[in-house]
Amino acid sequence: MSEVLIGIDLGGTNVKTAVVSRAGEVLGKDCRPTRASEGPDVVIDMMVESAEAALSQASVAQSNVLAAGIGAPGPMNWQTGVVFSPPNLPGWKDMPLADTMAKRLGVPCFVDNDANVACFGEFWLGAGRDVDSMVLLTLGTGVGGGIIVMGKLLRGPDGTAAEVGHLCVRRNGRRCNCGARGCLETYASVTGMVRTAVDGIQAGHQTALLERCGGDLEKITGRMISEAAQAGDGFAAWVIGETGVWLGAAIGSLINLLNPEKVVLAGGMIAAGEMLFSPARATAKRQSFEVPGSRASVEAATLGGDAGVIGAAGCALERLGLI
Amino acid sequence: MSEVLIGIDLGGTNVKTAVVSRAGEVLGKDCRPTRASEGPDVVIDMMVESAEAALSQASVAQSNVLAAGIGAPGPMNWQTGVVFSPPNLPGWKDMPLADTMAKRLGVPCFVDNDANVACFGEFWLGAGRDVDSMVLLTLGTGVGGGIIVMGKLLRGPDGTAAEVGHLCVRRNGRRCNCGARGCLETYASVTGMVRTAVDGIQAGHQTALLERCGGDLEKITGRMISEAAQAGDGFAAWVIGETGVWLGAAIGSLINLLNPEKVVLAGGMIAAGEMLFSPARATAKRQSFEVPGSRASVEAATLGGDAGVIGAAGCALERLGLI
Repeated sequence: MSEVLIGIDLGGTNVKTAVVSRAGEVLGKDCRPTRASEGPDVVIDMMVESAEAALSQASVAQSNVLAAGIGAPGPMNWQTGVVFSPPNLPGWKDMPLADTMAKRLGVPCFVDNDANVACFGEFWLGAGRDVDSMVLLTLGTGVGGGIIVMGKLLRGPDGTAAEVGHLCVRRNGRRCNCGARGCLETYASVTGMVRTAVDGIQAGHQTALLERCGGDLEKITGRMISEAAQAGDGFAAWVIGETGVWLGAAIGSLINLLNPEKVVLAGGMIAAGEMLFSPARATAKRQSFEVPGSRASVEAATLGGDAGVIGAAGCALERLGLI
Repeated sequence: MSEVLIGIDLGGTNVKTAVVSRAGEVLGKDCRPTRASEGPDVVIDMMVESAEAALSQASVAQSNVLAAGIGAPGPMNWQTGVVFSPPNLPGWKDMPLADTMAKRLGVPCFVDNDANVACFGEFWLGAGRDVDSMVLLTLGTGVGGGIIVMGKLLRGPDGTAAEVGHLCVRRNGRRCNCGARGCLETYASVTGMVRTAVDGIQAGHQTALLERCGGDLEKITGRMISEAAQAGDGFAAWVIGETGVWLGAAIGSLINLLNPEKVVLAGGMIAAGEMLFSPARATAKRQSFEVPGSRASVEAATLGGDAGVIGAAGCALERLGLI
């Protein structure tokens, strides 16, 4: 039996685990509730149980495990593996997660920011497997992501690099949860898209969305916009296109700045397909120089929900210097 | 006599050269007209003569030269050292600059983008000498720059990375020479600052600038704005502050994206001092996350006009794998 890695994706709702071979083959998986509200000790138990279940599913002995990688919500010190106080993990404060898990699993453990880990997954085995540089943008409630340059994950001295959702695309624009104004996230997240729809409806645009939400604008969701657009609602299609244009403006900046080979889009919003991708690509092209703009292809992520666990395993391999 | 490097900064107006020791000591310098209008052969001769003059001034024999680095205007292929067709070097087309100069100087030659080279200079021996990551923004007629991450110059596969002047800071904003809209360069270059002044005067603002330019708004210069501000003109001071805010919005984005240890400002405009730096710093802080925002200090470059020649020598050393 060859050596394997354990990759753990620690979220506020679920702990997901994969057992991955050094060549990147997924041998076993597990997913179970994080039970975050029960505090750090229970969460650690869940992670250990999930790792054991994934190993068992893969029929791999503990002794074949080389190391474990953990994608955790920030902020954290990725060098020491200490997680500070993630908003969605109540009771966590300066938790030495890498050391704690290393003791429990009996193998070296490495902790990284969950968004960076997902980026590394797509780079190692997903949409970016054939390139040396890429940017990942994860379009969900917020906009997260990761950056690979010169074949390496760009973490930065504080591990906070690649906050692609917090590029300022409009000075004095919409106020962001981060405290700044005009961040990409306020326009190109699902939340931002919904806000664009609500603003447009309040400005008097006619749309079937009004009926779908029963006249209550607070009930409008990303899915509702997507469904209305697919059903032929012009306003809903415009909202998705507008979201794509904002995204494209940021992608153009990222291309000018990083000259990446690929820009990979992930997260729930990519289900909107060409309605989102087409204006994003066109705007990115218009907003970037010709040479890097022609180089960078804008593509959908391919690992879906597995990017985190695969990336966590890959990051562990990278931290061991084996990748 | 220890080994030395030759660093050449090839501009449209002047060829500058420095002889630099491996430890980064500048031993000799030369500067002479490029004579760009006389075509590539003459320019190559000027570069060779400048290198010889700098060696002679340094009292270093040709046989002590390890390699030469050349900072040239883009676009180019930095891997092969072929320069395509720089707008300010008439008659140049797919010039194998590295090979040509290697034959003429009898040492390995490496070519890099001039802005990246200046960044490497500040990183090696200037404002960034004590850090592993930095962003340089050069504020002149345009906005250029460079990026260092993980101790390395970020060139990108096409060598076009670090076009910091072409971050989109306002979707649908001012039209840029690059064809895009809302690029930082249209607001935070000297040209952009002058445009902000002209726009404000046309909107009816009162200012001593009107008298200084003799009523001809096309005659307003960056220096004129700076002098008026220093003489107490409120509008001119506002124009510089406004330029600093645009700059700060982009710096905030760069901090969120790259988590750099330093952001270094260079170019003619930094003479405006605190009138520019203070709003730039405040805005950058407001527009970035707390941890990376507190980490990144925004400082003035320290090498002045020597950043290019020193950086070119440093880049040669780096390309040899000696730095």
